[in-house]
Amino acid sequence: MGGILTVVSHPDDETFGCGGTLALHSRESGVLCLTCNPRNRRDELERACSVLGVSDPIVFEEDNVCYSRELVKRVTDVIVAVRPRIIITHLPFDYHSDHRASYDVVKEAIEWAGHTTTYSKPWLVERLLLMEVNTLIPSPQIFVDVSDTMDKKRAAVAAYDTQLAKFQWGYYQKFNDRKAELRGVQGNCRYAESFSEESLPKNGPFYEMKSTRNLLR
Amino acid sequence: MGGILTVVSHPDDETFGCGGTLALHSRESGVLCLTCNPRNRRDELERACSVLGVSDPIVFEEDNVCYSRELVKRVTDVIVAVRPRIIITHLPFDYHSDHRASYDVVKEAIEWAGHTTTYSKPWLVERLLLMEVNTLIPSPQIFVDVSDTMDKKRAAVAAYDTQLAKFQWGYYQKFNDRKAELRGVQGNCRYAESFSEESLPKNGPFYEMKSTRNLLR
Amino acid sequence: MGGILTVVSHPDDETFGCGGTLALHSRESGVLCLTCNPRNRRDELERACSVLGVSDPIVFEEDNVCYSRELVKRVTDVIVAVRPRIIITHLPFDYHSDHRASYDVVKEAIEWAGHTTTYSKPWLVERLLLMEVNTLIPSPQIFVDVSDTMDKKRAAVAAYDTQLAKFQWGYYQKFNDRKAELRGVQGNCRYAESFSEESLPKNGPFYEMKSTRNLLR
Amino acid sequence: MGGILTVVSHPDDETFGCGGTLALHSRESGVLCLTCNPRNRRDELERACSVLGVSDPIVFEEDNVCYSRELVKRVTDVIVAVRPRIIITHLPFDYHSDHRASYDVVKEAIEWAGHTTTYSKPWLVERLLLMEVNTLIPSPQIFVDVSDTMDKKRAAVAAYDTQLAKFQWGYYQKFNDRKAELRGVQGNCRYAESFSEESLPKNGPFYEMKSTRNLLR
Amino acid sequence: MGGILTVVSHPDDETFGCGGTLALHSRESGVLCLTCNPRNRRDELERACSVLGVSDPIVFEEDNVCYSRELVKRVTDVIVAVRPRIIITHLPFDYHSDHRASYDVVKEAIEWAGHTTTYSKPWLVERLLLMEVNTLIPSPQIFVDVSDTMDKKRAAVAAYDTQLAKFQWGYYQKFNDRKAELRGVQGNCRYAESFSEESLPKNGPFYEMKSTRNLLR
Amino acid sequence: MGGILTVVSHPDDETFGCGGTLALHSRESGVLCLTCNPRNRRDELERACSVLGVSDPIVFEEDNVCYSRELVKRVTDVIVAVRPRIIITHLPFDYHSDHRASYDVVKEAIEWAGHTTTYSKPWLVERLLLMEVNTLIPSPQIFVDVSDTMDKKRAAVAAYDTQLAKFQWGYYQKFNDRKAELRGVQGNCRYAESFSEESLPKNGPFYEMKSTRNLLR
Repeated sequence: MGGILTVVSHPDDETFGCGGTLALHSRESGVLCLTCNPRNRRDELERACSVLGVSDPIVFEEDNVCYSRELVKRVTDVIVAVRPRIIITHLPFDYHSDHRASYDVVKEAIEWAGHTTTYSKPWLVERLLLMEVNTLIPSPQIFVDVSDTMDKKRAAVAAYDTQLAKFQWGYYQKFNDRKAELRGVQGNCRYAESFSEESLPKNGPFYEMKSTRNLLR
Repeated sequence: MGGILTVVSHPDDETFGCGGTLALHSRESGVLCLTCNPRNRRDELERACSVLGVSDPIVFEEDNVCYSRELVKRVTDVIVAVRPRIIITHLPFDYHSDHRASYDVVKEAIEWAGHTTTYSKPWLVERLLLMEVNTLIPSPQIFVDVSDTMDKKRAAVAAYDTQLAKFQWGYYQKFNDRKAELRGVQGNCRYAESFSEESLPKNGPFYEMKSTRNLLR
Repeated sequence: MGGILTVVSHPDDETFGCGGTLALHSRESGVLCLTCNPRNRRDELERACSVLGVSDPIVFEEDNVCYSRELVKRVTDVIVAVRPRIIITHLPFDYHSDHRASYDVVKEAIEWAGHTTTYSKPWLVERLLLMEVNTLIPSPQIFVDVSDTMDKKRAAVAAYDTQLAKFQWGYYQKFNDRKAELRGVQGNCRYAESFSEESLPKNGPFYEMKSTRNLLR
Repeated sequence: MGGILTVVSHPDDETFGCGGTLALHSRESGVLCLTCNPRNRRDELERACSVLGVSDPIVFEEDNVCYSRELVKRVTDVIVAVRPRIIITHLPFDYHSDHRASYDVVKEAIEWAGHTTTYSKPWLVERLLLMEVNTLIPSPQIFVDVSDTMDKKRAAVAAYDTQLAKFQWGYYQKFNDRKAELRGVQGNCRYAESFSEESLPKNGPFYEMKSTRNLLR
Repeated sequence: MGGILTVVSHPDDETFGCGGTLALHSRESGVLCLTCNPRNRRDELERACSVLGVSDPIVFEEDNVCYSRELVKRVTDVIVAVRPRIIITHLPFDYHSDHRASYDVVKEAIEWAGHTTTYSKPWLVERLLLMEVNTLIPSPQIFVDVSDTMDKKRAAVAAYDTQLAKFQWGYYQKFNDRKAELRGVQGNCRYAESFSEESLPKNGPFYEMKSTRNLLR
Repeated sequence: MGGILTVVSHPDDETFGCGGTLALHSRESGVLCLTCNPRNRRDELERACSVLGVSDPIVFEEDNVCYSRELVKRVTDVIVAVRPRIIITHLPFDYHSDHRASYDVVKEAIEWAGHTTTYSKPWLVERLLLMEVNTLIPSPQIFVDVSDTMDKKRAAVAAYDTQLAKFQWGYYQKFNDRKAELRGVQGNCRYAESFSEESLPKNGPFYEMKSTRNLLR
């Protein structure tokens, strides 16, 4: 693929955390959602992805996200199959334990996806971005201007009937709008999504290519 | 006093970080501003405090905030004189080095203000709250509903001519409004200011009273 | 209830860590003990609680404390049923892995107990205190003067026959007494128990009430 | 410039830490050396830079590197004048206190160099790389293949007569060669230099451009 | 025994991390290997240990290293049976999750091995050393001069046919040699292995002997 | 010397923190006190050291302990002159800022004392122990049985008239006794002093001897 893969804990995280960014890169973006509980949330996820222009989200249907070798392996297989340049997932200091566990799983999966000793066609992810759902990033490294896709993001939020129904006063819609406006003010644009970026170590001897001859290319 | 003392790095930090909270407790609040550079910012600070209902801000007129024993001593003297139950200052992970230094100075000053061996009338601060100016708190511990004083906060922001002039497109006003709205959504109210709280250790043997007989009072 | 709930790893932790404090607030205190291995320790726990004036400790009878979603859920259910203002548990840097796991479980349970989306009658715990069993707190935030209940604490220690028998030279009794005396000297009283306090974040949008209008009440 | 600026504590750090990388990008690289003590080390620095193909190193002639506002300001002025895309400096966990202080100064200088409120022509550095002199990086993020410039690096090492004379058995030459070989094995090439990369926060509202519309460009 | 026990994740870690050190103390050294997957790696481990002069490595045949009470118990039993003065294991910041889990298991096992309440003949390990396989130690605390046993280490590496076959260009042999040379230059000898040392807390009351009367013996 | 050098912030720290240990090794122990303010505390220090059997304490007469290159240099000179195997100083997490600064100065001085490039007769300190004055160590690594010298420690405490006078109710004597008793219970002896131990890195190439051939000597 060469684009963006977003790995999230629950249906709606992809929209709340980076829906505008996905819509901006919709033809080059994919979504992997680790849980789907209750099962009817799958329909909502598919409707939201469709609104954002992202096709065929992958869903694992775990009940909760718990770190395990098996889950790491399944996520690694997706990375090797999808071959994304950028992965977006949750913050390691997110308040939600599922989100923190997703970060741990994704970090480990990125490592193993690159190993020539594990995969005949390994894949080295270039960048790891971490998004904000409810927990905010103190000093973001990346601001994406989503002014052009904010309407799509709002429409994708609207697809999550079961979530919106939990707060009659419109918590989700309002939080989404205010966050995008605040980050927009910081990013010198109308609406923005912000991210933390974590540089990826080149650990093993196991990657096909590791060194560069030109830092400025 | 028994109220709130806000110790800030620069004129305007008190308004941006906790202006609505100060206005809510205006008769019981004080402001200590460590720098005043250039000097004409003092007028703006006094105008803003007046709008918030806080009288007579104390100004130290340092050029920058640098940790030193002398500065710790001067802040300690203010704490012992003012006798606040709550101190509000900057975040230790703020992006601005003056803000981080202010945190260090205040932490140290709170310790020494309580020592019977240093002051004949020592003072034990009860609570330390940390506010957000530009750097956001990931998961705040306190939300103060400032819906009733948001207009005063906006008027105090408007007192900072020299700062507002730096951004023709209204950065300061917009950032202030959006932040208060976002925190309001999280705090189940219209406008909120949010804080991190840091529990204060009872270190030395030097305090007048240290133990309690009733945790539930 | 509105009082204190102590969540401990093993029978005797509640007495060693905060027995004097529980006895001070006995009518408003409860105990949840996560393990009971071997089973005959349950009798000792009930005798010790009876001496402290705490009725009906809840016992889970796990073999060890391991973090799991199921255990978090069970502890959350107890919090929502008991509705304590203060929870006391173990230190995150305790030398005992069961104690560290108990801290992790309790932290998570406090979060979920407050969610309106999970419980029809959710409960927001106000304060989290961490106690010292064998591992000491470098700079405690809270000293409770237990001079009036030290005799009850000693009597509760004496209820743990199986533990005391492990050390013929009276380790448990002596350690308990010396610790209470040392903390008493620091707390300007005869005997004290000391605690670390951790401010609780207001993470989600899921709490009934989150913001305040008066910091000084 | 648009190239690489290396900010080092002492003459020879630029060669030991990233001499091969500088030689690879010699027409687009600059060196700022914060100390020059004793003064005759300046000649050695200029000879080494000349061998590497880097012209006109800037030298501050401090005795030691101590964090101060004045030094931050002087480094910021160089950054704004030179306009590098990449800055290379020392590790924050380097064993040498001068190196750690250089890191602190450079981090702060990068922030202020970007502020429109401080400079009429501010400059936003894109990437911060941290190099290894004696302290090694556990898991590097960047390996630069310096096989083509290793001879130049060796020749630049040879320019440091006063340093080489400290170790008759050839410590500096040997350490340099072995490190480049070890990192080469890890980087799948003959000789490599390795770096840690630290993502730069976009803190203030003070940058000219902050948000992007395309993460995949 | 009174010697050295090395607890590793996989066959070959003992050779790559501390093979030269084991060969230097071969009559007083033992190896515990937690995984053996695929099973034919056991032969290689035994051949390598034989070359190093270490007899009868213990192998657990786990598929992966995951922290669990059961695994801690099994490692503790080995420690109590073998009675080593020094334990060598992996770094807590190693890039490999099996290595990090081995560190956690070993740390916990060392604690419980000392408890008189758990073992009739408990054992207090004196020192914990952490070795480097692929992840390097920034500033090692210990350098062992393995010049006399480097040939044995090379021969032990050569026993790992299945691993060497993964890299036709001789990654393992080269990385091993270059690392020993680099650490040798730092340690003022021809070849060295380097370690981090972690001081062991004396936590519980459960050790037979805890205090000393002479720090200088 | 080859013995113990204690580097403390204020007269009395050496007695409160490690007086019993110094008395146990009195002929091989030295004291360096960084401040002496007010000056009459020097007499008390000399009387206390005399009681402990330690001759000729070195006093620097700073007003406060602030990290500076000059202070590091002066402490380094003392280390190189005194040549201690063990240095005892304050905890890096001590509540007192002078104590924390002393730790920083000592850590740095130990590094430079070993450099052949700085001293013609450099000195490599073997062990660094950290002591508890008012701030306690959660899980100590070292317990020294001071039962035989507790009377001397008490007599040395009694030499500090000016300090004892600050607390009519005998804080210092009581805190000292209770702490030694508590640590004694943990250390399986009557009275103990406890310490944290920090393994010292072998950073530079600058030490005379760095590697060992026998870990078990």
